[in-house]
Amino acid sequence: MPTVITECPRVAPTLAERFLAFGVATVHEAQGRVGLMHAGLKPIYRPAHIAGSAVTCTVAPGDNWTIHVAVEQCQPGDILVVTPTSPCEDGYFGDLLAVSLQSRGVRGLIIAAGVRDTATLTEMKFPVWSNAIFAQGTVKETLGDVNLPMVCAGALVHPGDLIVADDDGVVVVPRASAERVLENCLARETKEAKTRARLAAGELGLDIYGMRSRLQEKGLVYRAARDVA
Amino acid sequence: MPTVITECPRVAPTLAERFLAFGVATVHEAQGRVGLMHAGLKPIYRPAHIAGSAVTCTVAPGDNWTIHVAVEQCQPGDILVVTPTSPCEDGYFGDLLAVSLQSRGVRGLIIAAGVRDTATLTEMKFPVWSNAIFAQGTVKETLGDVNLPMVCAGALVHPGDLIVADDDGVVVVPRASAERVLENCLARETKEAKTRARLAAGELGLDIYGMRSRLQEKGLVYRAARDVA
Amino acid sequence: MPTVITECPRVAPTLAERFLAFGVATVHEAQGRVGLMHAGLKPIYRPAHIAGSAVTCTVAPGDNWTIHVAVEQCQPGDILVVTPTSPCEDGYFGDLLAVSLQSRGVRGLIIAAGVRDTATLTEMKFPVWSNAIFAQGTVKETLGDVNLPMVCAGALVHPGDLIVADDDGVVVVPRASAERVLENCLARETKEAKTRARLAAGELGLDIYGMRSRLQEKGLVYRAARDVA
Amino acid sequence: MPTVITECPRVAPTLAERFLAFGVATVHEAQGRVGLMHAGLKPIYRPAHIAGSAVTCTVAPGDNWTIHVAVEQCQPGDILVVTPTSPCEDGYFGDLLAVSLQSRGVRGLIIAAGVRDTATLTEMKFPVWSNAIFAQGTVKETLGDVNLPMVCAGALVHPGDLIVADDDGVVVVPRASAERVLENCLARETKEAKTRARLAAGELGLDIYGMRSRLQEKGLVYRAARDVA
Amino acid sequence: MPTVITECPRVAPTLAERFLAFGVATVHEAQGRVGLMHAGLKPIYRPAHIAGSAVTCTVAPGDNWTIHVAVEQCQPGDILVVTPTSPCEDGYFGDLLAVSLQSRGVRGLIIAAGVRDTATLTEMKFPVWSNAIFAQGTVKETLGDVNLPMVCAGALVHPGDLIVADDDGVVVVPRASAERVLENCLARETKEAKTRARLAAGELGLDIYGMRSRLQEKGLVYRAARDVA
Amino acid sequence: MPTVITECPRVAPTLAERFLAFGVATVHEAQGRVGLMHAGLKPIYRPAHIAGSAVTCTVAPGDNWTIHVAVEQCQPGDILVVTPTSPCEDGYFGDLLAVSLQSRGVRGLIIAAGVRDTATLTEMKFPVWSNAIFAQGTVKETLGDVNLPMVCAGALVHPGDLIVADDDGVVVVPRASAERVLENCLARETKEAKTRARLAAGELGLDIYGMRSRLQEKGLVYRAARDVA
Repeated sequence: MPTVITECPRVAPTLAERFLAFGVATVHEAQGRVGLMHAGLKPIYRPAHIAGSAVTCTVAPGDNWTIHVAVEQCQPGDILVVTPTSPCEDGYFGDLLAVSLQSRGVRGLIIAAGVRDTATLTEMKFPVWSNAIFAQGTVKETLGDVNLPMVCAGALVHPGDLIVADDDGVVVVPRASAERVLENCLARETKEAKTRARLAAGELGLDIYGMRSRLQEKGLVYRAARDVA
Repeated sequence: MPTVITECPRVAPTLAERFLAFGVATVHEAQGRVGLMHAGLKPIYRPAHIAGSAVTCTVAPGDNWTIHVAVEQCQPGDILVVTPTSPCEDGYFGDLLAVSLQSRGVRGLIIAAGVRDTATLTEMKFPVWSNAIFAQGTVKETLGDVNLPMVCAGALVHPGDLIVADDDGVVVVPRASAERVLENCLARETKEAKTRARLAAGELGLDIYGMRSRLQEKGLVYRAARDVA
Repeated sequence: MPTVITECPRVAPTLAERFLAFGVATVHEAQGRVGLMHAGLKPIYRPAHIAGSAVTCTVAPGDNWTIHVAVEQCQPGDILVVTPTSPCEDGYFGDLLAVSLQSRGVRGLIIAAGVRDTATLTEMKFPVWSNAIFAQGTVKETLGDVNLPMVCAGALVHPGDLIVADDDGVVVVPRASAERVLENCLARETKEAKTRARLAAGELGLDIYGMRSRLQEKGLVYRAARDVA
Repeated sequence: MPTVITECPRVAPTLAERFLAFGVATVHEAQGRVGLMHAGLKPIYRPAHIAGSAVTCTVAPGDNWTIHVAVEQCQPGDILVVTPTSPCEDGYFGDLLAVSLQSRGVRGLIIAAGVRDTATLTEMKFPVWSNAIFAQGTVKETLGDVNLPMVCAGALVHPGDLIVADDDGVVVVPRASAERVLENCLARETKEAKTRARLAAGELGLDIYGMRSRLQEKGLVYRAARDVA
Repeated sequence: MPTVITECPRVAPTLAERFLAFGVATVHEAQGRVGLMHAGLKPIYRPAHIAGSAVTCTVAPGDNWTIHVAVEQCQPGDILVVTPTSPCEDGYFGDLLAVSLQSRGVRGLIIAAGVRDTATLTEMKFPVWSNAIFAQGTVKETLGDVNLPMVCAGALVHPGDLIVADDDGVVVVPRASAERVLENCLARETKEAKTRARLAAGELGLDIYGMRSRLQEKGLVYRAARDVA
Repeated sequence: MPTVITECPRVAPTLAERFLAFGVATVHEAQGRVGLMHAGLKPIYRPAHIAGSAVTCTVAPGDNWTIHVAVEQCQPGDILVVTPTSPCEDGYFGDLLAVSLQSRGVRGLIIAAGVRDTATLTEMKFPVWSNAIFAQGTVKETLGDVNLPMVCAGALVHPGDLIVADDDGVVVVPRASAERVLENCLARETKEAKTRARLAAGELGLDIYGMRSRLQEKGLVYRAARDVA
């Protein structure tokens, strides 16, 4: 029975925006290296960087009907996250749907399938992460669900979870963990800024991270090229 | 016996140019969702958008000899369409061939194989849709055919058919259908402009397309989250 | 036993720089069409074009520890070349490692695996050719080797070999052949410049390359379309 | 912090065994077409068909240490389900681990990665569904988790969930739904047996399923070939 | 408008059967190396070898409704050939449809998509060539066409064309060419039998095919290892 | 300049045969986890297991001419190893070439490309490891090299190196290391036999391999399910 869950709780938009100070790689590390979507999801233009609350949506293969249903559930600050119930590279999403989402304040689209009208989407500055770019259109015959938990590109997403996406990929932060993960990001960034300065000054990671004794334990051998040949 | 067909009839260049007002997604829809090449064909730079008459060419794997033969058959307004007789990602085409085609008024290349010298092709603004970018060169030992009907990236192409290509893919319009498809494109565009305005004003597709009753027929259920948990 | 070879001989930086006058396709042809890495390696931004001496490095899947070891072996004018011991798309390399390499005068990275922080790497103008862009991080538990001969993306690389990389791919020139290959490149370029001028003037490759007699030998048949239908 | 959850509740082995009367396609339909793992998971030999309770296990790329930890948590009637934290085709599992699992009454292995020693596993009649067969070994340096919920090949698996696997794929049935899904399977099978007999007797699905009126509504047109040409 | 063409002319079943004396590789060569489907189509069991007349059928992604329509058009000696209008690996076809086709004397299925119930299909000895094996089911909402010309796995198929399929792949022989291609097969086989005997006696292909002079023309050099090191 | 090296030194056939006591996974471990070809190489039938000396051969894409040249260089106990100069899935090798190799005592073929006539090859019991099975034939126009060092499926192979292949993959053992690697295999096997007996008796790898203290160091936590929920 196709179902729409309405009025889902979300991450506060102001909290979500603070994540824009960090790349996906940093957020992923800061929450313990979980929640990353597959590497196959690519932004249609670079650079792109968004953070917001997930509205989840499943679609039948070659059928984008449920996306029209999901649009109505979207609020300012949301990110629409779409996954087909079986793999499909068709162009589910084009410029008309983007106009509609943009008019509602939606920040972008994550879709484990194809999109089209990408030149127009790029001009509109509506960011999309997708598996494919393909002009092949879709029908409107079969319904999926909106705002049920789902697996998208290998990651579990609940409605209202925080999504962060940039040129390196897409990460899901469970709603309840968002504040804690933000603190971890801030702490990492402070530490990395210091490290970056030392590396730029020519210091070696081997020394900064104190790796030399562990290398020795592992039995690493250094030999000069002239002694080998 | 390798064969070249000369002096093939074409779509009039002025007719072809009128298609530049439409994306491939629109043309594909307007001719009944047929004739699209596989999603694997990608432009070497974006944005790119061309329309013109096909000169068809088959090549042996790893052998670009027949492309040299095909160049001679190209006229202003043509698009060269190349397919290998078995899958091959070699760089069949580079800047010298592009210079030659450009000097003859050719609008671009569609090739279900690889190309190279892509930085130069991009500077030259010579658009290419290909399966791969690869510096690996080719030999000149085996001949294919020029201007016979062929299957390229899953679509049947006759010489003189209209080709339209943009960032979303490549579509083939049979020569005899080109005028009718253009009319359909114009009609779709008029309709979509109105819809776009309504969506931009915040109306929902569910309402514009009158989808709600069908949703109901399908038994769509809306439930509030607070009633679910 | 994990091993680092130090003080490897290199191609002279001034010799390497002279290769920047040529694309990878030209260098590949000029050394007899060998030494090209697989087409799957792509630059994270375009255009990009570097030439330098290889520092080679193998890494365990999902483990970038050895890259930290390799950094210390890098000198101005080097290019770091990394390959995992089994296929892995994780993000082995990010902005901190790039800062460290850039502070040592390294020209870029070739990695048959994934990278991350690509928006920052692009801003920094640190060029990378990789199989993937992926935020997934790595651990530091298992050591590989630095500056042993290795196969990267299907090509054999010895430490100190010349690497040339551009938008079309990556080619390896054995250190001992670098001078000879450069001469071949120069000779090809002189010849191609003349050909380019003739093609731009509208001459046909069929005539410039004297192909017509060979086409005749192969039995190529020309027929006018009006005589076929 | 790597974690092992012990003494997880399971589906009763006798309940699991009753699922062996049904193929994965039937179970998948019977629970509403959800819970199917990706098509990339293949059995190492055919035919193979198992049903049992999941012990879940995440592993680092190229590192099978956690599988050794998971073995101890397995009981008779269990199926071990393993997923790497990033994609990896290495051979995580071979004949020694299979001997160990078989001695504990484990029914098979589902692994979204590679296995090896497959000739021996086939002789032993220890069924495995995997993404790859590859002799490349793994290390024992990094720990994952045992019996935490995880995503395997696109499906969410909780420890103790029912797994059914056959030549067509792998499906997950949540522990709490197992009895209800079994009833649906039985009902479907009874119905299909009757249909099979009618089809074998030459009746058409179009008639048995009463499809003709819907075909007419959709505007399906029948034309004789002789009237078309 | 979805369309079914009825009463299509076919290759005579007795002519089709004579092709079973030849492998697909031989038939492909004998008709001039055209008409081969992509390498991605694989038999669900080996060995398998069939020849018969094509009934063609297009299906929407994830929707097998049209296959039910096509069944009624099948006659003894036919082979059903199915292609989705955009790429889809769902299991379009299972044991019930196979029972129905087998009861009508159909020799097998070629499908550029997925199938399921493969253990049962194998037991039934109903051969299928497919892109995928996957338990994911399909819906019945959207209609395609039956017995229109179509492109399947890169090859153009007209209804009534001869299909030959074996462990190496699938080839299409246009109906009008079937007799001539059969004669070529017979001639090739006679010649190959003699060659096979000579090779089995230890003669070299280089001598049998008289290749030595062309090798010399190409400048092939033989050097002893002792003269190289 | 295409080149054939003749009379290459080999691994003694009696030494090669002793490797048949071990799987590829064992040999790979025993020589320090190097020399494995990519996972994409699959045997055309299972089980299959061979060991012998490499005759190396490069071929142009879609051109098997050089294989005919290589046949002459093969001796009893050899394994022919073929790699195309750019990726190609055509059927380079069929039953005639297999008859010829078998008549010379060759043990099998490793080819990083396609083969055909696989039903006949299986009947003949001529084992082949390949990237693809495809009926598409090849031409004889361009020459490669025989018995030069080459990279095949990511591994460096010198003529005369030992090749071991089984259902899990293909491994290359440098000729000079063959005796030492055999000794390591024997030592591993002795040790594994004991371990296998203990595992079959129900002992845990955690205890046999003494892993428990290292698990504790890594901070592994055990929690009962009832204390978690």
